Amino acid sequence: MNPMRGSGKADVFYMLAHPVGHAKSPGIFNEIFEEKGLDSLMVPVSCKPEDFEAFWAGVTATENVRGVIVSVPYKTAVYKKCASAHDRAARVESANSVRRLPDGTWYAENFDGVGFVDALKDGGHPIAGKRVLLVGAGGAGASLAYCLAEEGAIEIRLADVDRERAERLAALVAKAFPACTVRVGEPDPTGMELVVNATPMGLKPTDPLPLDTAKLTADMTVMDIIMEPAETPLLKAAREAGCKVQAGRPMMDFQVKGMSEFFDIERKDRLNG
Amino acid sequence: MNPMRGSGKADVFYMLAHPVGHAKSPGIFNEIFEEKGLDSLMVPVSCKPEDFEAFWAGVTATENVRGVIVSVPYKTAVYKKCASAHDRAARVESANSVRRLPDGTWYAENFDGVGFVDALKDGGHPIAGKRVLLVGAGGAGASLAYCLAEEGAIEIRLADVDRERAERLAALVAKAFPACTVRVGEPDPTGMELVVNATPMGLKPTDPLPLDTAKLTADMTVMDIIMEPAETPLLKAAREAGCKVQAGRPMMDFQVKGMSEFFDIERKDRLNG
Repeated sequence: MNPMRGSGKADVFYMLAHPVGHAKSPGIFNEIFEEKGLDSLMVPVSCKPEDFEAFWAGVTATENVRGVIVSVPYKTAVYKKCASAHDRAARVESANSVRRLPDGTWYAENFDGVGFVDALKDGGHPIAGKRVLLVGAGGAGASLAYCLAEEGAIEIRLADVDRERAERLAALVAKAFPACTVRVGEPDPTGMELVVNATPMGLKPTDPLPLDTAKLTADMTVMDIIMEPAETPLLKAAREAGCKVQAGRPMMDFQVKGMSEFFDIERKDRLNG
Repeated sequence: MNPMRGSGKADVFYMLAHPVGHAKSPGIFNEIFEEKGLDSLMVPVSCKPEDFEAFWAGVTATENVRGVIVSVPYKTAVYKKCASAHDRAARVESANSVRRLPDGTWYAENFDGVGFVDALKDGGHPIAGKRVLLVGAGGAGASLAYCLAEEGAIEIRLADVDRERAERLAALVAKAFPACTVRVGEPDPTGMELVVNATPMGLKPTDPLPLDTAKLTADMTVMDIIMEPAETPLLKAAREAGCKVQAGRPMMDFQVKGMSEFFDIERKDRLNG
């Protein structure tokens, strides 16, 4: 049997969301800690939005918390608490992982787009030179838009129910990556080679489809960032239309890999000894 | 294999101390959770004294933390944050365990004395009717003094390097339990039947002995609350003098039993689902 996780010397990481009960990363990381025989804990924590300020001050005061994974609805709020950030977090003003620097301040990263890009590549779906329909310009969609442009997509059609939000994001991405044409449009895949859902539509069986699946053709690749169900109604329609499909779970797996390196989970100089 | 501890739905408990690296209860509780197949975590947490206010506000804001075990130096500070308390905590103004009530406030308990009494009884060392030398009138000593009087000790000789502190405690215990004679005196076991060390003397090999071991006689029972080393210099001297001895570890085990019931660790209606 491996040494037990959770002695007084354990390295402590938090995973923050509200609610947190359905978050997958605590279980994934605790399983990794167990497999690797690390005396570490990934602790699911939750606070009400009105208590966030007090909550975060408390996390900062907890000297043995090395890092925090951040999910909905706190990615922007936590980003604002950071003294420094990787460009991937700074350009979307959103943190999905933060770690404590030696001076006690927080450093922000965002692996949403990284996991997405790595999952597509690993699935055999290149991004460079492709035309992309991206549906959803919220937190996840913003990270994905930047990463698609960064990876060499030549055109992004950005669709969102909030057209103003989509316009703002399109302008920012076009400015950062002028080689990529970014236009706001309808959730219509016509003329696109890669089709991505970055909305929550598909989590619940009663959700409407995020885009016009009647216009999917067999030459398209369709990806959904939703992990559960593994095959969303969108992916089912795409499969039936003969498209290549990419499910959401590998995106999480690649994020976990990035976070593990970011948190340096196997480092030898433990804080808490 | 048991279901893994630490999913997003895990029940979360904190163990607070500063420093926390050498605390035993996180490891003990995580082992219990593992053995029982509970999706729960006991998380060691630490904060600097100047950050305690922010730390505690943060714990209170963390809605899925069900309870906290409290150790040095925060037992009094945490007690003061509680809206209600068991008499065992209230009389010494010290909490070693707190749980969240349905209205969101904290309820304080203190198992220091409970574990002590249960360990003595379990070891076959009755308290009722006995004369006791108790060395140490600090946090642990105060809990023990009340519990000894409550269990029917007829006399307590209370010794502490801080005589004023000992006088204050003696007066409080005597007032609460008039049937017990409580007097401040020297750390001299002469005339006593039960001899208890409630000071930290004996944790380090270079510590002086907490009491005059030359005056121990074979009819005495000697207990040390120190857990490590298992046989302190005091217990070694007592054994050599032919005394019955009681080590500190069972006191911890009985505290853990009390805390497990207090936290209701096996309850079915999880908060975080």
